[in-house]
Amino acid sequence: MGSLHADNLENSCIENPLDPEEFRRQGHMMIDFLADYYRDVEKYPVRSQVEPGYLRKLLPESAPYNPEPIETILQDVQTQIVPGITHWQSPNYFAYFPSSGSIAGFLGEMLSTGFNVVGFNWMSSPAATELESIVMDWLGKMLKLPKSFLFSGNGGGVLQGTTCEAILCTLTAARDRMLNKIGRENICKLVVYGSDQTHCALQKAAQIAGIHPKNFRAVPTTKTNSFGLTPDALRSTILADIEAGLVPLFLCATVGTTSSTAVDPIGPLCEVAKDYWIWVHVDAAYAGSACICPEFRHFIDGVENADSFSLNAHKWFFTTLDCCCLWVKEPSALVKALSTNPEYLRNKATDSKQVVDYKDWQIALSRRFRSMKLWLVLRSYGVANLRNFLRSHVKMAKNFEGFIAQDKRFEIVVPRTFAMVCFRLLPPSPPLSIMKVYQNGNGVHHSNHLQDETRANELNHRLLESINASGSAYMTHAMVGGVYMIRFAVGATLTEERHVVLAWKVVQEHADTILATF
Amino acid sequence: MGSLHADNLENSCIENPLDPEEFRRQGHMMIDFLADYYRDVEKYPVRSQVEPGYLRKLLPESAPYNPEPIETILQDVQTQIVPGITHWQSPNYFAYFPSSGSIAGFLGEMLSTGFNVVGFNWMSSPAATELESIVMDWLGKMLKLPKSFLFSGNGGGVLQGTTCEAILCTLTAARDRMLNKIGRENICKLVVYGSDQTHCALQKAAQIAGIHPKNFRAVPTTKTNSFGLTPDALRSTILADIEAGLVPLFLCATVGTTSSTAVDPIGPLCEVAKDYWIWVHVDAAYAGSACICPEFRHFIDGVENADSFSLNAHKWFFTTLDCCCLWVKEPSALVKALSTNPEYLRNKATDSKQVVDYKDWQIALSRRFRSMKLWLVLRSYGVANLRNFLRSHVKMAKNFEGFIAQDKRFEIVVPRTFAMVCFRLLPPSPPLSIMKVYQNGNGVHHSNHLQDETRANELNHRLLESINASGSAYMTHAMVGGVYMIRFAVGATLTEERHVVLAWKVVQEHADTILATF
Repeated sequence: MGSLHADNLENSCIENPLDPEEFRRQGHMMIDFLADYYRDVEKYPVRSQVEPGYLRKLLPESAPYNPEPIETILQDVQTQIVPGITHWQSPNYFAYFPSSGSIAGFLGEMLSTGFNVVGFNWMSSPAATELESIVMDWLGKMLKLPKSFLFSGNGGGVLQGTTCEAILCTLTAARDRMLNKIGRENICKLVVYGSDQTHCALQKAAQIAGIHPKNFRAVPTTKTNSFGLTPDALRSTILADIEAGLVPLFLCATVGTTSSTAVDPIGPLCEVAKDYWIWVHVDAAYAGSACICPEFRHFIDGVENADSFSLNAHKWFFTTLDCCCLWVKEPSALVKALSTNPEYLRNKATDSKQVVDYKDWQIALSRRFRSMKLWLVLRSYGVANLRNFLRSHVKMAKNFEGFIAQDKRFEIVVPRTFAMVCFRLLPPSPPLSIMKVYQNGNGVHHSNHLQDETRANELNHRLLESINASGSAYMTHAMVGGVYMIRFAVGATLTEERHVVLAWKVVQEHADTILATF
Repeated sequence: MGSLHADNLENSCIENPLDPEEFRRQGHMMIDFLADYYRDVEKYPVRSQVEPGYLRKLLPESAPYNPEPIETILQDVQTQIVPGITHWQSPNYFAYFPSSGSIAGFLGEMLSTGFNVVGFNWMSSPAATELESIVMDWLGKMLKLPKSFLFSGNGGGVLQGTTCEAILCTLTAARDRMLNKIGRENICKLVVYGSDQTHCALQKAAQIAGIHPKNFRAVPTTKTNSFGLTPDALRSTILADIEAGLVPLFLCATVGTTSSTAVDPIGPLCEVAKDYWIWVHVDAAYAGSACICPEFRHFIDGVENADSFSLNAHKWFFTTLDCCCLWVKEPSALVKALSTNPEYLRNKATDSKQVVDYKDWQIALSRRFRSMKLWLVLRSYGVANLRNFLRSHVKMAKNFEGFIAQDKRFEIVVPRTFAMVCFRLLPPSPPLSIMKVYQNGNGVHHSNHLQDETRANELNHRLLESINASGSAYMTHAMVGGVYMIRFAVGATLTEERHVVLAWKVVQEHADTILATF
């Protein structure tokens, strides 16, 4: 470990940092490291057990002056980094939504990183642009998206990093389309709509795009409608805004919400939106993948009336982070809002207008060759296997749901739609003495119902923390309609039936312990 | 190749898509593929020679129904994709700015992709957050950034995808800080400043953040000031805006512009900005890396008075795309503008306020484990070698500059500062008959000067196209002060002296041919 001040000693000299044979040697070493990681990952505590600040205690305060061999670095990865990782690739990972890696996704990322092209426009690497357009059409067809979203129908698809970016780009396009009509000075009148279940990406995108924070509508949903946004609630919110002199702009409808995988009714919502010239974006980040299976496709019925549609292939489609697939009907709206054409990027292909320059479809100028991984995933597994993989996750979630149904101490909080089960442990009946107080009158009863819910929430909070602290499985929670529930999302690629069975045992054991002291 | 309609036949079944031993087998195959690619890359035409639409002719119209073996896919990568790639990793690549890959950067990306964690907050993978904070402090110290940009000084660093994102985030933070003071309804009064040499990322960020397009100032620069933004020009623009009732908001100063690597004087510009409470961002996307060498550090003198600073490690710091390093003095300004805290992400660590949740420092919620590659680059090479690598590029550029100086047919258009040379071929003297017309009077002389410049631009445009069409080397152009010049940027990792010598021969040969017919 050297010092930054020994400038006169800069005689440390190693070979070219991209030497092909050294690349080969170190690359093989890394493949073995990662293959061993996947072999061993189920042994690690799923949620990292470290305390805040653990790593600063282990690492030096400054970068080394002299080079260190890869062997040393890999040892440090194993001893210093792996303990600080929450293992999203573990078969015992059921938290948030999956981040489903695959061999094909990994290899595609290697190719993308290996070529390391900066594909801002067609010219800068034609294959990067063209492969992206082609695989987006392939995937669009697998989803049976209407032709108007495909390049052959004058729409088109683009790979973004995340849904936040996809929403920000479409919202910016919608905003400028509207402001060009009503005047820039009216930006403070624009209103953005979602439900109280919509992902926070919408709120963030609205903040960044300069939408007045007062004009962000999280329309309430209810259990009666399975936490889906109802067209009536949307319309009455819109009407109130118009009444107040505001201008409805953008609706984000969700297929598979983060809290409970609720589905907003796309078709009826588009019907409402079209009356007010509102841009409708369909966020199917998680559940969109399932729609390549005919039995799930109906969840996006009505998408033909939306303006844009996105799903995250890095969630539940075996494509490593990041890879958000966005289709739009009117690419020119994106291009108008996002293009810049400096002289230093001018080239014959762009001038010919025969090519797509994806820099004008996204926030950043630089972009990676992301389509490579999606192409490898589609080809390595084929439509048939991709459907089978997704169905196997749904089946495992169904089994888990079955386990819960058989244990009367638990309840399913909202119906399972895809591969996520939302459940909770019911609080034990209060002692008889308290029960008597309950029956004293309606007011007391009511306040005790609330008290029960608070108790139930506290119970499940404790249960979840207990499960996660054990490291045997990792789940996360959500609150819907005031209910704290545990989300059990199946989708980690390595998960098999036996892991789900084990996870259920873990839940039961921790429930036993918690109930004994509650 | 199957059909999408054969749903009843979904009996194609393969093993787990993340099977460790299959991962090992295919991973080793891919490493060999890429090692061979690096070994052979200098033989390929640098700029792809394909025509628009080439790939759609080669690929099927739909995704395959059944899986295809990796061997077939790799053959297709070689025969269908490689010809469509512009080889940024070629030693004969001198275009745009470098995208300097390295073994360490590649291995770091492999680890990041392999773990495939979604590090939105600390809890979701503590190591991802903590390593990022640590390496950002390491790199900040290497650059001798003031302590106020480091975590130890209550500032901090974050890895973004690109400079566009870094600017958009800081601009949004500055915007909301200002609007909270003067009222949301004044968004149309906010003014953003750059020079006519500032990267188009600033304009794009301003568009997305809802800054009125009329309030974007590209302050003119001149050759006299080496195309740097002068404090006087900035101040008079600001004063005019204030006079017009507008509100100055944000200045992006550049160290190493894209067109000519010009350097804006950070210190004096910050002096002006501070009089008007303007947020100053320093964009050192390309040249920032060089500032780890003491002899280049003075170019960012004055950064202590800026609010934020960024450089792209994926440009000239051996870290594969994407990896933009952003430091800010006031992280809470970012967090205020970009945070969203939905219940489903609540966790003990966040509630304790002892941790950084990087989702609130950037546009997207999801984020890759990018610090892994920066950590591997810093450790694998050490400060000493990183400086040596950068100096070797500067030395090669200097040599190229020397070649040009010895050939009187060429001129250096702007002084070389880093590892990029801006040059042009001078048009041959016009025939004597035309020379006489020149001397007829001042007016004629003047218009012929303009005509000369147009001829010179056309000449260099033809020269560049001729060089690039040959595939032997790839350079790009820029226009500064009306002059079309060829940019020769040294920085591709595999480039050695011999490639620069060869490139110069290529330039001379094509100049000979072009001049013969001009």
